[in-house]
Amino acid sequence: MRGVAIVGVGMTPVTSGSGKSLTELFVEAGTQAIEDAGIDRVDSLYVGNMMSGFLQNQEHLGALMATALGNEGVPSYKVEGACASGGVAANAGVKAVLSGLEGVVLVGGVEKMSGYTTPEVTAGLMMAEDKARVGGTGVTFVGLNAMIAREYMHRYKVPHEAIAAFPVLCHENALDNPKAQFHKKITVEDVLKSPLVADPLRLFDCSGIGDGAAALVLTSLKNARKFTDTPVEIAASTVGTDRVTLYQRPDITTFEASRKAVAEAYQRARVKPEDVDVLEVHDAFSVLGIMALEDLGFASKGSGSSLAKDGVCARDGRLPTNTFGGLKARGHPVGASGAYQLAELALQLSNRAGKCQVPNAEVGLAQSVGGIGTTVPVHILKRAGS
Amino acid sequence: MRGVAIVGVGMTPVTSGSGKSLTELFVEAGTQAIEDAGIDRVDSLYVGNMMSGFLQNQEHLGALMATALGNEGVPSYKVEGACASGGVAANAGVKAVLSGLEGVVLVGGVEKMSGYTTPEVTAGLMMAEDKARVGGTGVTFVGLNAMIAREYMHRYKVPHEAIAAFPVLCHENALDNPKAQFHKKITVEDVLKSPLVADPLRLFDCSGIGDGAAALVLTSLKNARKFTDTPVEIAASTVGTDRVTLYQRPDITTFEASRKAVAEAYQRARVKPEDVDVLEVHDAFSVLGIMALEDLGFASKGSGSSLAKDGVCARDGRLPTNTFGGLKARGHPVGASGAYQLAELALQLSNRAGKCQVPNAEVGLAQSVGGIGTTVPVHILKRAGS
Repeated sequence: MRGVAIVGVGMTPVTSGSGKSLTELFVEAGTQAIEDAGIDRVDSLYVGNMMSGFLQNQEHLGALMATALGNEGVPSYKVEGACASGGVAANAGVKAVLSGLEGVVLVGGVEKMSGYTTPEVTAGLMMAEDKARVGGTGVTFVGLNAMIAREYMHRYKVPHEAIAAFPVLCHENALDNPKAQFHKKITVEDVLKSPLVADPLRLFDCSGIGDGAAALVLTSLKNARKFTDTPVEIAASTVGTDRVTLYQRPDITTFEASRKAVAEAYQRARVKPEDVDVLEVHDAFSVLGIMALEDLGFASKGSGSSLAKDGVCARDGRLPTNTFGGLKARGHPVGASGAYQLAELALQLSNRAGKCQVPNAEVGLAQSVGGIGTTVPVHILKRAGS
Repeated sequence: MRGVAIVGVGMTPVTSGSGKSLTELFVEAGTQAIEDAGIDRVDSLYVGNMMSGFLQNQEHLGALMATALGNEGVPSYKVEGACASGGVAANAGVKAVLSGLEGVVLVGGVEKMSGYTTPEVTAGLMMAEDKARVGGTGVTFVGLNAMIAREYMHRYKVPHEAIAAFPVLCHENALDNPKAQFHKKITVEDVLKSPLVADPLRLFDCSGIGDGAAALVLTSLKNARKFTDTPVEIAASTVGTDRVTLYQRPDITTFEASRKAVAEAYQRARVKPEDVDVLEVHDAFSVLGIMALEDLGFASKGSGSSLAKDGVCARDGRLPTNTFGGLKARGHPVGASGAYQLAELALQLSNRAGKCQVPNAEVGLAQSVGGIGTTVPVHILKRAGS
């Protein structure tokens, strides 16, 4: 892939009850990213979001955000891929830069989930599933992920306490991230004793409900140093998809969309799993974090939890993972999470991650997931050579 | 712009009460387009849609449609720009091809609007406006367009009967389009006597409510003849945006987003207004068709209606416009209309437009509009040289 680079990043804190509108959230993150790039205007915007039509009865976020950011007139539209919307918006921006049509592009994601009832948010999340197939069956999005957790635990004889190591890791990392939603150390026992949400998933297995936005300024690698001394190359931006409904798939304990997207990304970026210094995975539910470690090539099927348990995924381990807290503890405003991952990786690879910094990180990988493993954007980032 | 070409097109009929799901509609159009290109698989899909989250409580159309079309696994996401969603999806597809990342790309739009109450559809359309500014004021989307019509008629001293020439033209053209929603010849008097919807706009000034989908297969111009003997070049694909709300703008009788997008398109395609052989404009309301003729450079402000009245826009006139019936009579399933325009132009430029054919058409221009002139994709197509 010809070169695209990240030259500016911005993120709001993730909070529940922010009281902020979609526009206020995106403008906060977008303004930070634009200022971080040392500019005051971009050539185009791609806004990732999943639920604004359903929850806010607001579409047309492209023009809305362009105007609110003082960029009225530029090409701008919304990009949606369920909970991976922020990741696919980045993919759209990468293509815009590579097309040669737009030189400096803002991409990001925004979601406002707080201030609604649990049934409203639950119904909103189910828009990621095929309504015609399972929409009226009564199962929830958490319930479908619980089916995966149950099958995974049964098939590979992995106890819940092993899986629970993942949220424990994320909460530990989030303690150092001032923008994280949760600053609370938890133990495996806390996870196992937390209230049951959808058997076997308990409260601390699940990411929370929050508001947030993250944004990135992209440009060609060639021009990146006009904007920053620490550009981060997007060495691969791929998207895999899969059949939407679980029962259409031969095996629910692995996500083919992940495996497809990451295989293509490794090839494009000329990177192997062992080259990855920092990893961001989509741990909307504990079991998904574990499965991602396997599907992305870091562990064999059924053995992912050992990486989380044994310190390999800790910030001082061999494979620092979800170093700002991941979806579980940084927070998961669904349409924004894919953009948060990329912003956090960019900070790591430009040595600006503060207390979350992993020393000498040069290669990062982010995996975002829309639906139940249905749409998976994967990005591989590299510290750009000088 | 390096070359991108259309090598396959598909369209469902536009109907009210189709009884078909979003998936069934898009699969019908997509399958036609893929078969028209002589292939059985594409490398990626971009699905334009505006209201699925609100009306169908269904998002994630990218993966859903990829799977339903037998293309599971490929990159796919939804693209939204209000009523211009089909047009911006095409823009996303053009960038995907130009990026070099994807060789054969399906783009299109789908909307299902029938089967809902008028208040539901009315609320859905208002998602194109800024909810925070005017969402709760009681004005409707038609009402906002009525304000434009009133101001336009007053400022330029254009009587309603002059504007009414536009829907009359569209209904005339649709008589020859088997996929049009309305096959009914109307007169200026019919328009003026039709029921008032939002003063001064009457029923026949307004496009209807319908279901439909349209799709296109895109590839590089270089490879286009591997798929078809009659490729159509996309010589320009631009998007202009504007402040979302009418009262933010200095002049509501002209759409800056249109003027910006078309100026850039003319420049990129090296085409002047007088070179355009076939024109498709976004006549969701009669006055918008007239304003488009002006904003796109075919008439001075206030004089657009004369082109419609005096036969210039007729299929045998100097500037054949909305040759399949336009939004008014072909129909306006909002997220699909921008894709219908491009499919219809591609048929014209490949001499496959049947009874709607304009002889020797070589250059076509399509303008789609999201919101009240807020997001405007413009495409210039050319019959590809051999």
